[in-house]
Amino acid sequence: MESLRITLEQSEIPTHWYNVVADLPTPPVPPLGADGKPVSAAQLAAIFPAAIIDQEMSAERWIAIPEQVREIYRLWRPSPLIRARRLEEMLGTPARIYYKYEGVSPAGSHKPNTAVAQAFYNQQAGIKRITTETGAGQWGCSMAFAGQMFGLEVRVYMVKVSFQQKPFRRSMMQTWGAEVFASPSAMTQTGRDLLASDPDNQGSLGIAISEAVEEAAARADTSYALGSVLNHVALHQTIIGQEAKKQFEKVGDWPDVIFAPCGGGSSFAGIAFPFVAENASGGRHGRPTRLVAVEPSSCPTLTRGAYAYDFGDASGFTPLMKMYTLGHDFMPPGIHAGGLRYHGDSPLVSQLYHEGLIEALAVGQLATFEAGVLFARAEGVIPAPESNHAIRAAIDEALRCKESGEAMTILVNLTGHGHFDMAAYDRYFAGQLEDFEYPAEAIRASLEHLPKVG
Amino acid sequence: MESLRITLEQSEIPTHWYNVVADLPTPPVPPLGADGKPVSAAQLAAIFPAAIIDQEMSAERWIAIPEQVREIYRLWRPSPLIRARRLEEMLGTPARIYYKYEGVSPAGSHKPNTAVAQAFYNQQAGIKRITTETGAGQWGCSMAFAGQMFGLEVRVYMVKVSFQQKPFRRSMMQTWGAEVFASPSAMTQTGRDLLASDPDNQGSLGIAISEAVEEAAARADTSYALGSVLNHVALHQTIIGQEAKKQFEKVGDWPDVIFAPCGGGSSFAGIAFPFVAENASGGRHGRPTRLVAVEPSSCPTLTRGAYAYDFGDASGFTPLMKMYTLGHDFMPPGIHAGGLRYHGDSPLVSQLYHEGLIEALAVGQLATFEAGVLFARAEGVIPAPESNHAIRAAIDEALRCKESGEAMTILVNLTGHGHFDMAAYDRYFAGQLEDFEYPAEAIRASLEHLPKVG
Repeated sequence: MESLRITLEQSEIPTHWYNVVADLPTPPVPPLGADGKPVSAAQLAAIFPAAIIDQEMSAERWIAIPEQVREIYRLWRPSPLIRARRLEEMLGTPARIYYKYEGVSPAGSHKPNTAVAQAFYNQQAGIKRITTETGAGQWGCSMAFAGQMFGLEVRVYMVKVSFQQKPFRRSMMQTWGAEVFASPSAMTQTGRDLLASDPDNQGSLGIAISEAVEEAAARADTSYALGSVLNHVALHQTIIGQEAKKQFEKVGDWPDVIFAPCGGGSSFAGIAFPFVAENASGGRHGRPTRLVAVEPSSCPTLTRGAYAYDFGDASGFTPLMKMYTLGHDFMPPGIHAGGLRYHGDSPLVSQLYHEGLIEALAVGQLATFEAGVLFARAEGVIPAPESNHAIRAAIDEALRCKESGEAMTILVNLTGHGHFDMAAYDRYFAGQLEDFEYPAEAIRASLEHLPKVG
Repeated sequence: MESLRITLEQSEIPTHWYNVVADLPTPPVPPLGADGKPVSAAQLAAIFPAAIIDQEMSAERWIAIPEQVREIYRLWRPSPLIRARRLEEMLGTPARIYYKYEGVSPAGSHKPNTAVAQAFYNQQAGIKRITTETGAGQWGCSMAFAGQMFGLEVRVYMVKVSFQQKPFRRSMMQTWGAEVFASPSAMTQTGRDLLASDPDNQGSLGIAISEAVEEAAARADTSYALGSVLNHVALHQTIIGQEAKKQFEKVGDWPDVIFAPCGGGSSFAGIAFPFVAENASGGRHGRPTRLVAVEPSSCPTLTRGAYAYDFGDASGFTPLMKMYTLGHDFMPPGIHAGGLRYHGDSPLVSQLYHEGLIEALAVGQLATFEAGVLFARAEGVIPAPESNHAIRAAIDEALRCKESGEAMTILVNLTGHGHFDMAAYDRYFAGQLEDFEYPAEAIRASLEHLPKVG
């Protein structure tokens, strides 16, 4: 019997998160405040607990995972690594394709890996309540679930248009006991001001972030939580890549290339960072593993953006971060991979890309859904639209191998299932989806609004 | 580290299905045709392949699971057995509560356990296409997935009102390559006749069954597949209970009582039948395991129906089966546990109940959703409304243990996740759901329409 699903014992869940900062050729530059000076830990303390701030600024290579976090991880981890043998046969490729399947978590994606850790550190710090924002709802669900596990109240500001059009993720958050508000809301000054001038405002992720941060900053018992971009989020996700390494060791294989979807960067960081150190010393088997971030061509941050200091949100509320960005007021079209619609990228992912240690690739929406349907028919799992980006890139690589005859090993981060995205598949089948490539002048225009620094 | 999630190796997937017929005190009575005579294998051959008919009629205790079926099972099996420690703590009960989680399959429920087997036997028999019916879509999805795994075309007749109101399960079937028709459809004589007299007919499961059977009977390359009720379906599901036994042995515990939702009976059969033989010889540890089928009080087949020969479908198209029934023209209200809205029950489950070897319990809709929300908040998993029936009964038992101080072991068959049922949770939160108890005279009236036999 050949085992296509490579599992680990629960005792094999990694004991430490891996911090890629320790293995960067040059130290990361700090985020800057409105005054142009590096943001201090004291400034962050208004919205984050000390343990999270320590991790955000740490250069330690290994950071211990608390037993209470591992206990919750054990509800679904270690996640399986699965050999996509049926997909290989369907493609007729000599390549070996594996996927690390994060859709097995209660919230259905990789997001709980960090949500659980953040909830734990907040509970330990005596925090009673967490505020956060959500677009389509993936992150809000993960935080609602994680907050419930540690007895924290969770308040989610959900972009109003999603609140109205995507009721099911809202119901899921409520099932886990979270309060969900359509943003802009009457709960904050930001929301009230917007509604006063525009009662029909449909909201945006930038507005929702502002509301969540405003509430967290105003209350001592409340913290804010973010689901991507920041260093501590990338750190928590490295459990994915570490497990994958053990699983490959178990079957005596090793990835030549890894593809992960990339929006804010947390799922890419999660699977790829643990291979960066290995690559620095020449790779496990004498050659490095190629690490490829796959983004939508409608929001091509790494492939067509600038490497510069920019705000993390649309309204310029957050500190400035050095990252690849399309400009904080860049408005990507309403593609269905909502999790990848972010103007910037994780500063750590951006630095690795800038220093040539990772690659990036942009793919069109139609090609990603085509890949997702092919994958579902071969493997059974219906992937989230975000994951379809990585699957598209993997299929293209496998087809290149078919031409060349190369028997390489490909790893995909299959970040979540598509159970709440069937409307997008429906639109794909109905021929209602389209591709979108930004004209160069549109990107140039929004990059002109980058804040001036130094 | 205590492990709450009890897993098995893929090599521990059972090699045989268990056939409870071998351990029944009296042999089952046969299904009867329109002429009142037992249905022959030759009659069934119009819509089922020979291997399925053999299993339907077999009295062999163990039937080997083909390696090709086990290969597909390995995509998600063995399913985990999980100790619901957080739920126990929330309830303050000395009882130990475990759940066998079948929501890990690609289709999200236990249904693929039989769909995969049925697809395999049809493919082996040279069948090219399978027709089936679906209400809310759980079974249609499972058959679409399974057909895809063995290269069979799948045509699903989906009750029109569900087709229109529940588009996401339809999209899921299409993603797996199935054709889905709103029933009544123009594809069959049954459908055309109905539409001619009533163009706005919203369909019913009975009509959809008739359409699927009509098409299968008319074409030599086409078989029909059913997702519950029949003996071979119950047989295939026994993999659930067999795995659970191994998992309990692994942790040195054993269930005192098992609760499973019961509509057509396949999920109850799946987890409970493997314990029937054990009970017959006094139980594993000197006392039998109580086996409790939990049904909705709005469709109380076992608890308030008659044990009699009745049609399997509403229109009287199928053979007569001896079973607990509320009468084939009984119309249960539109409760949200669509999988439990069936007027009859598996003949094998019915016989076991009639002979006093299992118990039955009816619970109200509101209490089941209350239980599901409590469970989700404790354990993370959001259960399907069907599963909430078993969870409700388990919580009530655990609360009784709290009163009595008894440290019993409770097992729940958590048959699927609720990702496609969030609209029902929404209605529960909005206070829009209600309980429904049938007046005794309504049940008496529909039982008067039972066919006369012999």
